This record gives sequence, structure tokens and C-alpha cells, in this order.
Amino acid sequence: MGKEPNGNGLLRLRRVDIDTYRENVGYLHRECPVYRAEGFQALSKVEITTNGKTVLALLNVVDDEAIVAPDELGLSEQAFDQLGVEAGAPVRVAQAEPPASMDAVRRKIAGERLTEEDFHAITRDLVHNRYSKMEMAAFLVASGQTGLDRDEVLYYTRAMADSGRRLDWHEPLVADKHCIGGIPGNRTSMLVVPIVAAHGMLIPKTSSRAITSPAGTADTMEVLARVELSPERLHSIVRKERGCLAWGGTAHLAPVDDILIAVERPLGMDAVGQMVASILSKKLAAGATHLLVDIPVGPTAKVRHMRQALALRKLFEFVGDRIGILLEVIITDGRQPVGRGIGPVLEARDVMQVLGNHPDAPPDLRQKALRLAGRVLEFDPDIRGGHGFAIARDILDSGRALAKMNAIIAAQGGLEASPGPSELTHEVTAAQDGVVVGIDNLQMNRIARLAGAPMDKGAGVDLLRKLGDPVRKGEPIYRIHAEFEADFRFARGLAERDSGYSIGTTEQLPGTYVDF
Amino acid sequence: MGKEPNGNGLLRLRRVDIDTYRENVGYLHRECPVYRAEGFQALSKVEITTNGKTVLALLNVVDDEAIVAPDELGLSEQAFDQLGVEAGAPVRVAQAEPPASMDAVRRKIAGERLTEEDFHAITRDLVHNRYSKMEMAAFLVASGQTGLDRDEVLYYTRAMADSGRRLDWHEPLVADKHCIGGIPGNRTSMLVVPIVAAHGMLIPKTSSRAITSPAGTADTMEVLARVELSPERLHSIVRKERGCLAWGGTAHLAPVDDILIAVERPLGMDAVGQMVASILSKKLAAGATHLLVDIPVGPTAKVRHMRQALALRKLFEFVGDRIGILLEVIITDGRQPVGRGIGPVLEARDVMQVLGNHPDAPPDLRQKALRLAGRVLEFDPDIRGGHGFAIARDILDSGRALAKMNAIIAAQGGLEASPGPSELTHEVTAAQDGVVVGIDNLQMNRIARLAGAPMDKGAGVDLLRKLGDPVRKGEPIYRIHAEFEADFRFARGLAERDSGYSIGTTEQLPGTYVDF
Repeated sequence: MGKEPNGNGLLRLRRVDIDTYRENVGYLHRECPVYRAEGFQALSKVEITTNGKTVLALLNVVDDEAIVAPDELGLSEQAFDQLGVEAGAPVRVAQAEPPASMDAVRRKIAGERLTEEDFHAITRDLVHNRYSKMEMAAFLVASGQTGLDRDEVLYYTRAMADSGRRLDWHEPLVADKHCIGGIPGNRTSMLVVPIVAAHGMLIPKTSSRAITSPAGTADTMEVLARVELSPERLHSIVRKERGCLAWGGTAHLAPVDDILIAVERPLGMDAVGQMVASILSKKLAAGATHLLVDIPVGPTAKVRHMRQALALRKLFEFVGDRIGILLEVIITDGRQPVGRGIGPVLEARDVMQVLGNHPDAPPDLRQKALRLAGRVLEFDPDIRGGHGFAIARDILDSGRALAKMNAIIAAQGGLEASPGPSELTHEVTAAQDGVVVGIDNLQMNRIARLAGAPMDKGAGVDLLRKLGDPVRKGEPIYRIHAEFEADFRFARGLAERDSGYSIGTTEQLPGTYVDF
Repeated sequence: MGKEPNGNGLLRLRRVDIDTYRENVGYLHRECPVYRAEGFQALSKVEITTNGKTVLALLNVVDDEAIVAPDELGLSEQAFDQLGVEAGAPVRVAQAEPPASMDAVRRKIAGERLTEEDFHAITRDLVHNRYSKMEMAAFLVASGQTGLDRDEVLYYTRAMADSGRRLDWHEPLVADKHCIGGIPGNRTSMLVVPIVAAHGMLIPKTSSRAITSPAGTADTMEVLARVELSPERLHSIVRKERGCLAWGGTAHLAPVDDILIAVERPLGMDAVGQMVASILSKKLAAGATHLLVDIPVGPTAKVRHMRQALALRKLFEFVGDRIGILLEVIITDGRQPVGRGIGPVLEARDVMQVLGNHPDAPPDLRQKALRLAGRVLEFDPDIRGGHGFAIARDILDSGRALAKMNAIIAAQGGLEASPGPSELTHEVTAAQDGVVVGIDNLQMNRIARLAGAPMDKGAGVDLLRKLGDPVRKGEPIYRIHAEFEADFRFARGLAERDSGYSIGTTEQLPGTYVDF
């Protein structure tokens, strides 16, 4: 054992109080005999073993004994916790082999088709933190660029669902709905869940936080109640209320998705195959039996043309059928934001106005939510096809949906005082007379995010005019809310350069992509 | 400035004695008011500014005031050096925008063709460390998978050459040679340079170290002399001796390549467009006017079929013509390793035997080097086409090449005592009677690397039989040399599982791909 000059090659484990999030880091002193003997380089991937347990980490080389001594191996906080042994324990360090499934990734780069076993190997290695971020990027770009065919999307969906926990609700009908995203203010889940649950159908909805948008359902619900619930609490709420509106992050469902997001987000990757596999694997792991998928179509939506929406629908249907989820796709109007508010507090206000049958409630949010809820209700074999909408409307108009929402809020630990909209406000005005003929979803998202949403719950944008509304030059078209002066300035500056609104004549109004 | 609760938002700069190699890391304490106010996350990319200077770094969050205090910003060693100011200087930290050229990368991912300006933007951002490793991986995979067309390779070559320093030798003919790699023992540069320089032609050769092979020319030359030379020293050696054999890493020529290697190597990426642009941009930056490119072809070489070699030749010619390098491509026999030794000391021995006209000198190495040197010499307008080989042979046979090599070694600081081959040896023997009909380049590389090459200079493999040689069962076919017991065991184990040699009958000998 010529390369272990300190006898047994063991080092003492030390916790280094540095938070490196999803990237494990190991720290070796430059004078550490193992470091010198093994010829590691900084940024080598190393495998740290103790007592049969192993973690992988990126190596940083330390020149300061206050951080690690030459006979120690330091681990960043998350890596130390993963190893789960006491500081001072003897550990062994070796050069890590690249994950075996990178062979499959290389085949994908070369344009080959992968097998179901390949996808299982990739997701296993991902979940065990064997992929560096650049390896994840290679996988995502390779499978995004030449694409995954529909069988590959199916294999990948199954592999992702198998990579984490699976919930079983022990009921024959567990409903869920999902929107592919991209439309500001589209908070229909917070209406569909209370309507469907009030009918008695099980709808244990978990949602994400905003990734690149100014608010996710979890961010908006958090204005009203707690959304980070333990699996036990979540179960008991769902048993009692038939529904919930919780954050999905704690459930460890199809965790591959949560791992890849750390690369997808900064790269701005949003490939179709990846999206379908991510969505359906989460739903499968969450125990859904029936799923309604909302695909908004519009010139600034994720899906811009009807033919793309149809192709995406077929892909959802193909995979859904094969993993045993009864899945329906609904194509909706994505030409402009839904409702008025963009940002958690403003969106929560819209939702509560619809539930309360308030005269100011935004009619498009109400209409869309009823349409979706109606379709979900029709999953119930006792509801005649086409009758769902009317039942949903009855539940909403009668106040039963509001009562259910209040019960869910109470069960999830309702907040004593909800925050109001942020108090720095600025009204953006119309540059000319005419009719609103375009609202750019992407630009409205950008302005709301610059204003501080979703971090500052009360920040965002409140739309005062929607498509088809007449405006006069100088009249306000939307209002920016911000919590902090710097954000306020940035958001105003962006809105001045490009308001996101187009004003024209009635003839210029884009046709609806969807008939409803 | 509501988000700067400590008044001016400034932190004190601190050097954190951690070596993070090519990935800048910034350290903020969790209680740092700027960290809390800005809502950074661990692994956010941040921009650190002081006095008009800026570095980008990945953020790590620290829970130990011994590493950084709440009013400090720590930088890892390389990042601190890049910023180039004193510890204690006031610095400002902000969320970094993703590099603007990532838009071009996203277009490449979508399969689009990029413009010359796109490639300049990408290389600029790469050189300024604005790309994270995952962003680099996205660029490499995207441009490797659907490929770059030949105009894109040209744009990329020019952009890479412009990204660093350019050398100008102020002479009309500056010769260079380059092999695309993959063949063990292929140390022809150490013969071509002294032959060509002895003739009086300028050949300032810079080489790389081994990346995935058991020895690069720089590793092998380092057995005899120093290869890390300052630009000034390199210039004065070349002026005096007309040639050199130096490591290229210190010259800051087309540095994009050195940056991308940190991702290409672990991903095992080796795309054609990337390779051609890397090679030619280095040569252009190094001031070469005439270049001979060696493309070995064989079943275990990088290029496996003649048609691939021809396509690659055309690509080299297309780009070479347009960047003003007079370029010739020579296709050579890549069916087996060149010479006998694999590993720095063993390869240096082969080279010195050829230079010394030693009876044991490997004839294939001599023959190939003469052929390449002859072609380089024919760049000289005074040498008649077809006469180069004979002139090269005269220079070698007369001892003038050896004298020139000794002069170059002395000028580069020749070592007093060169190391010998490592002393742990094991002979691998033939499993049957017959003729050697195959030697797997890749497997011989693996065995030599496991034995310790290139880190342990004397480690590697010494081939005792080559293609076409008769062997009897039990006769040694090659010898493994290792410095350390563990490496020795691993290398022997691998050779036992697969020796890399195929023994058969004369009829099974693969045809030469090349006629020489």
C-alpha cells in the first residue's frame, strides 16, 4: 500500500460549517498525506467512506489549519449530515469513479435512444447525488436537444416515480389537476380544490413554489395558511377535508425533479419530454388516479401554437395511459394573465373574491376555475358528461366552496393577519387611445419579479385593464406594488422601457386560440 | 435603498485559504446583513465589485465566524487573486446576471446556427469566468450533439484565438505539427522538432500534458528538461536554437480551451468541431504559419474509418485556409501504439534511442518521425517536393538531430539525473501460439494509467511484441512498470482480465489503413 504513507490512510471526519446546498464539498488540507499521495486535484470528485456509508463530494484544498488540519477530512454541512456519523469518526477518501450511467448520457449525446434500464440507472445515480451539476447539464441538454421519443418519456417517467416515496390514499378516485405554467395570475388550483373537495372528491393537491414566475400556488396559499406540512399532518387534513393546498417539497416524491431543477433553472431549460416526465412522475408518486392537465396557448405562453398543444396533449395521453392515470387535457386561453393580481398577496385577493362571490371578482379567473373544476368533477362516474360545470357553479355560488376553503385554511394553520399589498405604488398609463390588443405574459412576469415577488409577498402587479378593454391616453393600465425602494425603481424602469401592453384597434385583437 | 440595512451595503474583503481551482467561490456568513437582505441562496452566482474591478463567484454560506465574520466577504484563493486588491478592502456583492451569451447557447440547444458574433460573445464570457461549469457543459453538449457546421467551426476558431494572447515571431515561416491524439507512445514531436530545428526552420513547439492518456509530450520532455518556461525564456531559447519543446499552459494562448477542458475531461466529450477549433486557435495564437496535422486511423484510434479521416481533413483544410495557416494533413497508421514505451520515462527512452541511432531504437517511431519531419521540411520553398524525407534522414543519421536535442535540453535546463523505469515489474505473457493481430490502444492506455503514468514518470507499459510478430504461448508480450504496490496490483489485475493483445494467424492481421 505504497500510497498510504500515514499507515492506514484514515482521516478524522470534521464538520465544516459551510452550506454548499446541493453540491457536497469535501475539504482536505494541502499537507494532508492522503491528498499528496493520491494526486487529487482541487475539484476532483472524491468518495468518502466510513462504516459502510458513502458520500460523494467535490474536493476543495485548504491552506488553513483552522478550517481543516492535515489529518482531517472536512465535509460541508449537507454532506456531513448525509454521512450521518459523529465528528472525529475515521473516514477513508478515494477518487470517485464517474457515475456508471454517464455511459448512457454519452449515448444520448451521440443521438441514441435509451432503454428503460438506462433511465432507471440515471435516476438512481441522480438521487444518490452521483451527478455533478455539469453532468446533469449534459443529460438535460442531450435529452432536450435531440429530444426523447414518447417511449423514452414513458421510461423516464416510471424511473423518476420509482426514485422516491410513493403515496397510497387507499381510495379508487384520487383527483389532481396541473397547469404546465407560464401564465401570470393563473391560481385556479385554489378554486378547484375547495370546489372539488366540497363535492366530496379526494383532491390532495401539492404545489410548487415559484421557480421563474412571480408566484407559485404554494407561495400564494402561504399568504393565507401554512403550506409546509409534515406528511402525517397532510394526511390527516386530507382525510378530514378531502383536499389540501400544500407545498410538495417535503414529501420526497419523485425527487429527481427537485435535483435537476438546480440546473434547469439557471440554464433556462424547459424541454417538453423533461416537463411531461417531471409532471407525471410527481402525480404518479403522489398517488393520483385521475388528472386534468391545463395547457394554456397564446403568443407569449409556453405553448404558442395549437399544433404544439395538440402534440403535447398526445404525449401526456400516451404516457398517462401507460402509467395507469386517467388523464384528460384541456387547452385554455393563454393570451394574457388570468385575473388581476400578479404576486402572492394580489393573487390571493383575487381568489378570495371569487370564492366570496364579490362583485369585483375577476370574471376570467372564475370562469376558468369553474371550467376546470367541472371537468375534474366529471371524473366522478355519477356525474353525467357535461354536467360538471353547473355543479361546480352551484358549489361556488352557494358559498360551499368558500366554507371548504376556510376549513382547509384553518386545518393548515391559518394566519392571524394576512399581509396586504406592498405600499410603494406606481400606475403605468396608456401611451395612446385605443383598445388593449396584447398583454405580454413574459414581460408582466419580469416586472412583477423585479418589484419583489414572490419573496416580498405584497409586491407585484395589479392589472386594471385586460384584452379588449378600451383605454384613453394617460389612463392607468396597471399598478406596480413594491416593498423596497430599489426594487420599486427597477420595476418602474423596466415598465417604462416596455410596458408589456399593446394598444390598438378592435380589428387587431388576436383571435382566441381556444373556443370557450 | 431599503435592501441595504447596514447602511452602505459594503463588506470587508477576506482571503479564505481554500483552493477551488477553476471555480471561484465566495463565502458569506449566514448572519451577514447583505446575505439576509438580498435573499441569495447557497450556490447563487454573485458578482463582487471593488474599485471598478469585478469577479464572479459561486456563493457558499458559512456558519463559522472563524472562516468569515458577518461583516466580511470571503473569496477562495484564485478568486481573491483575480480581484487583486488587499484583504480588508471594501467590496460590494450583488446577484450576478447569467452571461448574456447564454442566449446563443440556448439557440444552439434549439438547433440553430450561430454567428461569428455569437462565438465571440461566448468565448469572451468564458475567458472572463462568467460561465459556470454547468453552463459550459450545456454549450459543449449542444455544440457537440447537433454539431457545428464548418463556418461555425471557423467562427469559433477565430473567436478562441482572439480570446487570449497572440505570439508574433516576426519570421515568414513558423512551422508546427500536431497530432489529434489517441495513440500511445506517439512521441514524434520530440524527434520532429530537433530535426526541423537542426535544418534551421523555426519550430517553437508547445505541447500539452496528458489529459486522459498515460503521457503527453510535455510530460515526456519533463523527464529530460524543464518544460514550464516563462514567455521570455521561451523566446530566447527559440531565437537561439530555432526550436523548443515546452508546455503550452503558461503562454495564455487561446485560453478558452484550458477552461473548457475542466468540463470536457470529466464528461469524456471529444466532438470534432470543438477539437478542430481548439487545435487551430492554439496554433493561430502561437503564431504558426505552417502546420502539419497527423490523423492516425485504426480500429481503436480516435478516427476509426478512412471516410471519417477524410471528412476531418477537409474540415482542417477549410478552416486553415481561412485563418491564413498553410496546413497539410497526413493520415497515419493508428492500428497500434507507436514505439515500445508507454509512459513518460519509457517513451523518453525510445526517443533518445532513435536520436542516438541505437540498434534497439523502435523502427516504427523512427519511420513515422522521419515521414512527418520530411513533410514539415518541405514547407521550406527551397526543398523540392518529395525530398524532405531524405533530408530528415540525413539530419538524424548524422547525429545533428541528437546534437540539436541536447542543445534544446540544455537550454531548457536539463535535469542532472533522469529517473529510470519504475522497479516493480510484471511480464504479461501470450495466452496461445500465433501472431500478434491486434493491440488495443485504449486498453494499453488504461493499463499504463493504472500503473501510475503520467504522475509516476517511470510507470507504464513496455511493449515487447508488435503487430505481426510471432509469439509462443507463455512468452512475454509486454512488461508493466509501477512505482507503488497498489497501482501495480490494479494494473496487473486489469491486464489479466483483458491483456489488450489479440493473437491469431497472419491472415487475421488487419490491413493497413494507410499506405506507407
